[in-house]
Amino acid sequence: MRSGAAADAVEVLSTAHPADLADLFQELSEDQRAAFLATLSPERLALLLDHLEPEDRGQVVNQMPRATLARVLDAADGAVAADILHSLPPAEAARVLSLMSQASEVLPLLAHSDESAGGLMTRRFIALHKEMTVQEALNYLRLRHPDAEEAYYLYVMDGNNRLEGVVSLRSLVVAPPNTTIENIMNPRVIAVAPGTDQEECARIARHYSLRALPVLGEERQLLGVIGIEDLMAVEAQEATEDMYRMVGIATDERALSPVLAAVRRRLPWLTINVFTAFLAAFTVSRFESTIAKVATLAVFMPVIAGQGGNAGVQTITLVVRALALGEIGLAQARQVLLKEIGVGLVNGLALGLLAGTVAWAWTGNGAMGLVVAAALWGNMVVAGLGGALAPLTLRLLRLDPALSSGIFVTALTDVMGFLLFLGLATIFIGRLG
Amino acid sequence: MRSGAAADAVEVLSTAHPADLADLFQELSEDQRAAFLATLSPERLALLLDHLEPEDRGQVVNQMPRATLARVLDAADGAVAADILHSLPPAEAARVLSLMSQASEVLPLLAHSDESAGGLMTRRFIALHKEMTVQEALNYLRLRHPDAEEAYYLYVMDGNNRLEGVVSLRSLVVAPPNTTIENIMNPRVIAVAPGTDQEECARIARHYSLRALPVLGEERQLLGVIGIEDLMAVEAQEATEDMYRMVGIATDERALSPVLAAVRRRLPWLTINVFTAFLAAFTVSRFESTIAKVATLAVFMPVIAGQGGNAGVQTITLVVRALALGEIGLAQARQVLLKEIGVGLVNGLALGLLAGTVAWAWTGNGAMGLVVAAALWGNMVVAGLGGALAPLTLRLLRLDPALSSGIFVTALTDVMGFLLFLGLATIFIGRLG
Repeated sequence: MRSGAAADAVEVLSTAHPADLADLFQELSEDQRAAFLATLSPERLALLLDHLEPEDRGQVVNQMPRATLARVLDAADGAVAADILHSLPPAEAARVLSLMSQASEVLPLLAHSDESAGGLMTRRFIALHKEMTVQEALNYLRLRHPDAEEAYYLYVMDGNNRLEGVVSLRSLVVAPPNTTIENIMNPRVIAVAPGTDQEECARIARHYSLRALPVLGEERQLLGVIGIEDLMAVEAQEATEDMYRMVGIATDERALSPVLAAVRRRLPWLTINVFTAFLAAFTVSRFESTIAKVATLAVFMPVIAGQGGNAGVQTITLVVRALALGEIGLAQARQVLLKEIGVGLVNGLALGLLAGTVAWAWTGNGAMGLVVAAALWGNMVVAGLGGALAPLTLRLLRLDPALSSGIFVTALTDVMGFLLFLGLATIFIGRLG
Repeated sequence: MRSGAAADAVEVLSTAHPADLADLFQELSEDQRAAFLATLSPERLALLLDHLEPEDRGQVVNQMPRATLARVLDAADGAVAADILHSLPPAEAARVLSLMSQASEVLPLLAHSDESAGGLMTRRFIALHKEMTVQEALNYLRLRHPDAEEAYYLYVMDGNNRLEGVVSLRSLVVAPPNTTIENIMNPRVIAVAPGTDQEECARIARHYSLRALPVLGEERQLLGVIGIEDLMAVEAQEATEDMYRMVGIATDERALSPVLAAVRRRLPWLTINVFTAFLAAFTVSRFESTIAKVATLAVFMPVIAGQGGNAGVQTITLVVRALALGEIGLAQARQVLLKEIGVGLVNGLALGLLAGTVAWAWTGNGAMGLVVAAALWGNMVVAGLGGALAPLTLRLLRLDPALSSGIFVTALTDVMGFLLFLGLATIFIGRLG
């Protein structure tokens, strides 16, 4: 930014979309960032924090004087403020809260995990009473002058603050002015509890094509509302997390994270993989004398292991994703298992015949072709069984099915593949020479 | 359904949420499905079709008499009707269109691909003129009596039907009745072209937290509007497609697809994998005499290959996902490559030392430990380089980065891993015996 154009720059920064500000922020150097932040009002800072990546957000928050942070959080949406307060050490958070004028708005949200409905919801919503007329409701809205995002649905309460129904702003606008709200409200409200996991909230919103999801307490009192734009971000984030977990990357790595941060996030699983790989090595070592007799066996080992690994990862991916999207649950476990064993049997037969024929043509030894074919067939069934069992078992144990990472299934198909292949080769060693 | 409760059942079916009807439908037998469909009105059938999985939807559409289908499509949202017409053979589609009374609503949508903004948009939107007053606009809305989902944003046009701005229904309700629309509209509208890919549309909506995305023609004329609930479904679908492509599953397989349908969708890639696996086998075969001398080499082969494969799949997953979410583009290619090579160097050194030490302790042979360590280190760098290059190259060629499936990268790390390990072993064979 040239200093002569400073006024223009401030004008641009104060009107640009906060998502674009966040993109810009990531391009700036350390010094530029400080200068940039100094130009923004607390309201704009609050919007910027909402759009920054967690890493950058943490850095900005840490460097901000506590009084400034308190003013920014006063201006921020409650869910965002709660998120940021959650990320601070408890003593720090308490201090910032004591400096905030809107602390009472945020306090109830702090009781919930960031990844639950309670942590996602905003407390900015419009409540109507069911005895109001349409005209009274419209007058009330003009008086309240709600924010942009909070007035799409209006929530209808009874005398005890319990949710009775929902009215869209549209139906309010087109209804005759003297009708009561009760007459135009929809009494069937799809809602969640504050403890509902955010992934489940996204699934419900997607399933029912909802634009907002109310969060109800035990007595059906309305605690807050989740907007679909937040759930859309959740959907993308949960898909990313599942993908990363399946290959053993910590879920907060980004493509441009520094090298050492990336190393820290991947090394743990790769270290586990060294030990699972040595399980496969141990299996092979039991057959060293067989390999010493027929070294060609080492040539076909990668074919048996590779096919099993890829088929296992296919099954895992399919089952993990179907569980995440709610397309299947444990009730379908038997059906999924049988299907994957069936797929392994058919694909294994086809690929076993193909690989066996190639091995036969290559070595000119029919027995070698048969051993390759049989081991590959068996390993494909192992892949289907293991690939389906792993995520289903994790779900049964109430763990994330995506933790059944490719690392474990490829270890299984390596060990079982070598056992089948080298075991059969040892039995038929006389015919392989 | 017991026949005595038939009336109750009809009542339930005519008021249940269509997403629940779709779930119910999937549980029914062939005969029950026919009876179930017969109870639904064209409007309810249209909603049901919107929520069915593509496979089930195709089956229902195919079995429906053409005149019934025309009435259902008349009642359906334009984007859904266009989707269904796209799925029919052209002659069939033309016949159904000729039977429809709302054909003129759907015809403009048929020009666009299902997976583009034009194929997703609905033509049900409310347009206002900028000279209208707020009161006139409210009166117009009462007259038009719009559907539930179409009136969240109102679109402001000039005399030539070009989009000038957008007004939320909320700001209309709270504005003074005599203000003109021009005074309360937001003139900065984020919009897309009809040819914009659906994935890009979802990315824009998520990035800017939008609840609707207008689709503009070349002259800024408003062609239609995409609701965020449709983009949320797109986001989930695109994540699923990327996950499936990376492991070589056709994108329309579901966890409960029949075995033979699943075989058809997975066998092609697994067959390609037989040939890439034989590339690895061929590499090993060049070193058969080395293995014949030291059979222990076959024991450590899976360790070198497995580590490289898992690290390569980590890199691919990270890069494919970051490209899909728009977190990186080709401009960051060099940065990503350098990072992944760096991660490979550091992780490779750590894991190489670990695996080399285990191999040394196991065999009591220091040279074997060094060969294992060096080969593993090198293969980890290959994994980082190949895992980053593959998706970036596909993006450069304007292909889907997710096609750089694990199958190719594991083939690369197998071949290069064996080449490094067995090549080094051949050089130092005198010290390994």
